[in-house]
Order: sequence, then C-alpha cells, then structure tokens
Amino acid sequence: MDPDAVAKAFVEHYYTTFDANRAGLANLYQEGSMLTFEGQKIQGCQNIVAKLTSLPFQQCQHNITTVDCQPSGAGGMLVFVSGTLQLAGEQHALKFSQMFHLMPTAQGSFYVLNDIFRLNYA
Amino acid sequence: MDPDAVAKAFVEHYYTTFDANRAGLANLYQEGSMLTFEGQKIQGCQNIVAKLTSLPFQQCQHNITTVDCQPSGAGGMLVFVSGTLQLAGEQHALKFSQMFHLMPTAQGSFYVLNDIFRLNYA
Repeated sequence: MDPDAVAKAFVEHYYTTFDANRAGLANLYQEGSMLTFEGQKIQGCQNIVAKLTSLPFQQCQHNITTVDCQPSGAGGMLVFVSGTLQLAGEQHALKFSQMFHLMPTAQGSFYVLNDIFRLNYA
Repeated sequence: MDPDAVAKAFVEHYYTTFDANRAGLANLYQEGSMLTFEGQKIQGCQNIVAKLTSLPFQQCQHNITTVDCQPSGAGGMLVFVSGTLQLAGEQHALKFSQMFHLMPTAQGSFYVLNDIFRLNYA
C-alpha cells in the first residue's frame, strides 16, 4: 500500500462526495470522530454530518492544490490538504486548509478520526 | 490538563524558538519524527533541524492567526496552525498553514511526531 496513493484517493473521494452529496460523507466518520470547523468543535458522525449538510451554501466545488501525507503511528495516516472552495454565485473562490487523521477500519478501509478545517482569509 | 492550553503553549514556544534560535527546535523532535516542508519529506530529528536551519533566510517572524487542537488517540494531540511569516527585508508577509502531531514523552512533556508545513500562495 502506497500511503501517498491512499491519501490522494481519499482526498478525491472526500471532496467529490462533499460537492455532490454531503450526506454521503456519513460513511467516512464514526462515533469517536471529531470535526473542528472554523474553530467550532463537533463530535460524532451524526453531529458532524448535520453540521456539514447545514452549511449555508448549496452548490460548491473544491479544487485541490496540495496533498501531503504521513504515517501517524498505530496504522493511522495524516492527510494535509490545501485548495480552493468555489461557492455557487460567488465571484471569488475561498482558500482553505484542512487536515484529516485517518484510522484503519476492521474492513481494511479508513475512517476519519480527526478533521480540522480552516478558511485562509486573504 | 487543558488540551487547548497545551496546544497554545506549544505553538508559542515553537515559533518563538524558530524565530530566535532555530537550532533549539532539536529538543522538540525525535528519531521517529517526520517533517514535510513544502512537499519535501524529511525524517529524524537531526535531518529536520538541518533542513530548518538551512532555509534560505535568516531573520523571520511568525504571527499566529488560528490554533486548533484535537486529541489524536494514544495520548497524542493534533495542532493545526494558520498564520503569517514575515521574512526580513521582504515587503509582504507569507501566509502559511502547519500541523503538528504531538506525542507524550516519558518525562510528561510532548515531542513532535509529525509536522507538515505549507505556504498558502495567493
């Protein structure tokens, strides 16, 4: 398993799902998962998906600029992303940074244990 | 122990040391530590400090905009930072994002297991 390839595949899957059907992200979180979204901490899959689906915009498109990854110990993986977020009807894309801590599942896949998102204001 | 307070204290210590005496950062890394600096992966305390001390600028000042933290499991802590980096003689500060994965030491402190740094180009 090439960690960089896994990270890239995860990132592609995550943002494609986010942009097409945010509720589908529920498959990627578990009860112990935590999201910090612009400083707000949210715990648990259900609460995280409720937050993501209630964000005050409908259509959006993420474009990825960089993806970095490192093993975090205990079979986990850290994925660090930078990119832009284009909201429908807005002239300028927003820059963002986001990190994911992926942990292995019993099924041989990964889930998101930690997720921290920040817009990078100019 | 308040994780947010620990994260804030770590961040303050890290960037104060970086800006005053980069070689002093050696105390914060161990042999298993990994740094990804602008996409380049560097493993081990000695190699990481060699990279940081050989960056092509002398005086610099980090200013922190946001600090987020979450427990990562196994006593570890994820710290996500955004801010600006002002290099001496440059007109404009550079925006950056950086994440640290801190793990507990036997002495009751923390060391940096994972460190990922990216400039956020405009």
